[in-house]
Amino acid sequence: MKIGKATIPRTAICTSDEHTIVVRGRDLSKDLIGKVSFVEHFFLALTGQLPSSGQAAVLNATLVAITEHGLVPSVQAARMTFAAAPDAMQGAVAAGILGCGSVVLGSSETAGRLFTEIDAKVRTGVGVPEAALAVMQAWRAAGKQIPGYGHPLHKERDERVGALFDVARQAGTDPRFIAIAEAVEALNPQVLKKDLKLNVSGAIPAVLLGAGFPVQALKGVPILARTAGLIAHLFEEISQPIGFALSYQATREMVYDGELPAGFGAHG
Amino acid sequence: MKIGKATIPRTAICTSDEHTIVVRGRDLSKDLIGKVSFVEHFFLALTGQLPSSGQAAVLNATLVAITEHGLVPSVQAARMTFAAAPDAMQGAVAAGILGCGSVVLGSSETAGRLFTEIDAKVRTGVGVPEAALAVMQAWRAAGKQIPGYGHPLHKERDERVGALFDVARQAGTDPRFIAIAEAVEALNPQVLKKDLKLNVSGAIPAVLLGAGFPVQALKGVPILARTAGLIAHLFEEISQPIGFALSYQATREMVYDGELPAGFGAHG
Amino acid sequence: MKIGKATIPRTAICTSDEHTIVVRGRDLSKDLIGKVSFVEHFFLALTGQLPSSGQAAVLNATLVAITEHGLVPSVQAARMTFAAAPDAMQGAVAAGILGCGSVVLGSSETAGRLFTEIDAKVRTGVGVPEAALAVMQAWRAAGKQIPGYGHPLHKERDERVGALFDVARQAGTDPRFIAIAEAVEALNPQVLKKDLKLNVSGAIPAVLLGAGFPVQALKGVPILARTAGLIAHLFEEISQPIGFALSYQATREMVYDGELPAGFGAHG
Amino acid sequence: MKIGKATIPRTAICTSDEHTIVVRGRDLSKDLIGKVSFVEHFFLALTGQLPSSGQAAVLNATLVAITEHGLVPSVQAARMTFAAAPDAMQGAVAAGILGCGSVVLGSSETAGRLFTEIDAKVRTGVGVPEAALAVMQAWRAAGKQIPGYGHPLHKERDERVGALFDVARQAGTDPRFIAIAEAVEALNPQVLKKDLKLNVSGAIPAVLLGAGFPVQALKGVPILARTAGLIAHLFEEISQPIGFALSYQATREMVYDGELPAGFGAHG
Repeated sequence: MKIGKATIPRTAICTSDEHTIVVRGRDLSKDLIGKVSFVEHFFLALTGQLPSSGQAAVLNATLVAITEHGLVPSVQAARMTFAAAPDAMQGAVAAGILGCGSVVLGSSETAGRLFTEIDAKVRTGVGVPEAALAVMQAWRAAGKQIPGYGHPLHKERDERVGALFDVARQAGTDPRFIAIAEAVEALNPQVLKKDLKLNVSGAIPAVLLGAGFPVQALKGVPILARTAGLIAHLFEEISQPIGFALSYQATREMVYDGELPAGFGAHG
Repeated sequence: MKIGKATIPRTAICTSDEHTIVVRGRDLSKDLIGKVSFVEHFFLALTGQLPSSGQAAVLNATLVAITEHGLVPSVQAARMTFAAAPDAMQGAVAAGILGCGSVVLGSSETAGRLFTEIDAKVRTGVGVPEAALAVMQAWRAAGKQIPGYGHPLHKERDERVGALFDVARQAGTDPRFIAIAEAVEALNPQVLKKDLKLNVSGAIPAVLLGAGFPVQALKGVPILARTAGLIAHLFEEISQPIGFALSYQATREMVYDGELPAGFGAHG
Repeated sequence: MKIGKATIPRTAICTSDEHTIVVRGRDLSKDLIGKVSFVEHFFLALTGQLPSSGQAAVLNATLVAITEHGLVPSVQAARMTFAAAPDAMQGAVAAGILGCGSVVLGSSETAGRLFTEIDAKVRTGVGVPEAALAVMQAWRAAGKQIPGYGHPLHKERDERVGALFDVARQAGTDPRFIAIAEAVEALNPQVLKKDLKLNVSGAIPAVLLGAGFPVQALKGVPILARTAGLIAHLFEEISQPIGFALSYQATREMVYDGELPAGFGAHG
Repeated sequence: MKIGKATIPRTAICTSDEHTIVVRGRDLSKDLIGKVSFVEHFFLALTGQLPSSGQAAVLNATLVAITEHGLVPSVQAARMTFAAAPDAMQGAVAAGILGCGSVVLGSSETAGRLFTEIDAKVRTGVGVPEAALAVMQAWRAAGKQIPGYGHPLHKERDERVGALFDVARQAGTDPRFIAIAEAVEALNPQVLKKDLKLNVSGAIPAVLLGAGFPVQALKGVPILARTAGLIAHLFEEISQPIGFALSYQATREMVYDGELPAGFGAHG
């Protein structure tokens, strides 16, 4: 069945013949394996350009920052899935990745869209605080949350934020999205009536956009990072299985608030 | 419901309090962000130890080697899924990862098990060729394939194999699994009656096991690498959508060989 | 980590002790197995009430209507995934379900929201055509599409639409959402400047909402139906494997429009 | 890339033109919608034949039997995923389905293979108990478990087993796999040294194989049934969110048994 107009598949990422695999114009075996790091290769595949050392440093730092946060819901989902289906590690990883949604890890991308919209206004000649205020008010008026601020555990500014900003400064990448992110943070008490501090999902686009990482691919960063973390947890699950222990604990205080048939529980 | 014996979830990978996230005993913000690369961090989360520069070089090289191979089935599945559900990039990545199975990308892990079994025999004092022959014959007798050899496109030895072996030699990691992989390759004409050459899924465990990467986590390497490639393809899909074009092409020569009701196709 | 306010898990769907499993107040083994059909059981689990025979007839009809449409993209994704990972049928089904997105099968749910919004206006005393026009114009002004109309293959009104409306009439369920769906259809030339006819994703909420099916669960109907279709296709894939043939066909006319290294393709 | 030999995709399940969708030789709109139930349609799509009323009764009963068992691990994984990614119900369903693995719900299929193997021996003229003993001993010698017996909660024979056997008897389907399943149960004390009783995953193939359901599609039954249950839970999650409460409870007694940096926890 034909859906949409395009009928010829096109791609500019990779092609190959019997002898050579080409990624973004380079010979994979001769020019890339052993010559570039995995993170540089990811940047190349994504954007078509190898990153500068500064760009690579920033991308590495963001990936390191969100690989792990312990037994978070997506890790629990993955370990429970692996306990039930140990033959299919790919299925358990997939179950974990499916929790990179709009509520938990997706705010990196939406914060990136917020900062990009503010940046577009700044480029028309408006000052950063004025542009930030205008866009924040427009988002609030449209019923949208301001993403990238506040954390259930880290009430003060998450320490990862400062660490990422330090990396960006040392890398010499464009600092203008950091300035935008901090302008939003300063305006939160006024706009949201809450002094919400930058969290890691706000800091990631602040440094990555300045490193030339495309805003539409931002969601890929938590997805890739968490995949690494999930693999570490699934490897631990093999020798120290806790998937079923997690599900047992989760329901110890479970309340059933539905109907019961007559005589239920009277056996013993 | 209690399944299994363990009831207390334990983990040694990560913990945190309001101020600090700890990964494998290190302060994430102070000791890791900006200090280690993403690949080093992955190795740390997985094994508990930071890799040597040689170990990191080998792991980087294997991840670079299998990030991309163009519009392979799992990439097609992911792009079709993204075309149908563009709001959920995580779902399209998950669909692609689910194709890292026993047939296509899982042979890295099974080849790693083969080499580990041969290595265990070598450690009892048997020569490499004898050990390889004995284990290969045992696998064949049990109806199992010899994984890691042959490729539908690359009939000669895949160029990525040599590139990976070069990286391992320069890195100075333990070469003994490369010797085992080459011993199996040399025995293929005798055991399989086919001169199947090492493919990339055979070369990956050959170099990674020598770099101290755990055999039970080998499947994580294609999963992590392909996640990076999938993100690149999904980013391309946003500006150059081909998901539905792929599915249209796939069925242009489709044959329906089932029954038809009377009058089907008579409308005009 | 605590996210959100609720800390005690509650559910009203199912509980059990050593002897009895309770679903929505009924003893599963005594009152449900062999006493109700699977579709009645699904309605019970979802809503807490067993359906009338009319409600069950409508729900059955909608599920039958969208179980199968041949080698659509999600079926292709599932068959490619199963070819690559034949040990994990659940992974291939999951890959197929992940294509039930906003573009392809999700429009049942969004059309249901459209009809519900029109219905709310009608209940304030406005006539159906006026209410439909007002809501359609509001959706268009907000940049939203009118879901449930038009089909890439079925240019006239999809025959499934009439079949579903017939079932609803015979079942005697509330016809008011059918009237709303047809009012929207009649207004399409005026509002969209295109004479788009009702498709199956528009007909499904039109009959299901009248049968008391909750609007927020509408997306579950294509998901459940397609799961049945996917299982049929994966069973066929075991005896007649076409997963890799589909991916081969999909790329026969593939165009690589990226860069190439010097000498690529010169081997011979 | 060409993988495998087949290059032309073939299917016998469904085809369509602009006017008509054909499923297994029937006109979907004229012959199936409103004429057959969803479960009959599933049987038709899968096997090519509409089921008898007895076959449909048995298939309905097995699906009803395993749709729900409360907040089991796969339901927890799905509800956690939906809490994190509420825009993508298909992703949460997929995460739940991925837990239909070899340990938890896959034993229906492996028990079906066990019974089929015993049945093949019986057809050569061996008595049922002798055939069962021989096959059980062969499976044990190969290191395989005897699937379909024992349950963490239901220590006596699960009440669903008797309910399913009653349905099969009333439906008049072939009882020979029930006899085989009970022969294995009677031999468990001798072969396993444990008096493990039939569980629902053993009873499902015992009745379905006698109803002509193909053994290779058995895994589809828990997958389809659980999809219905998952949709009910995700609908409840919308009005009564517990996904994050489950993950909070799961880790309340979590033990971190890894290293800690100096000074961790000293802040306050």
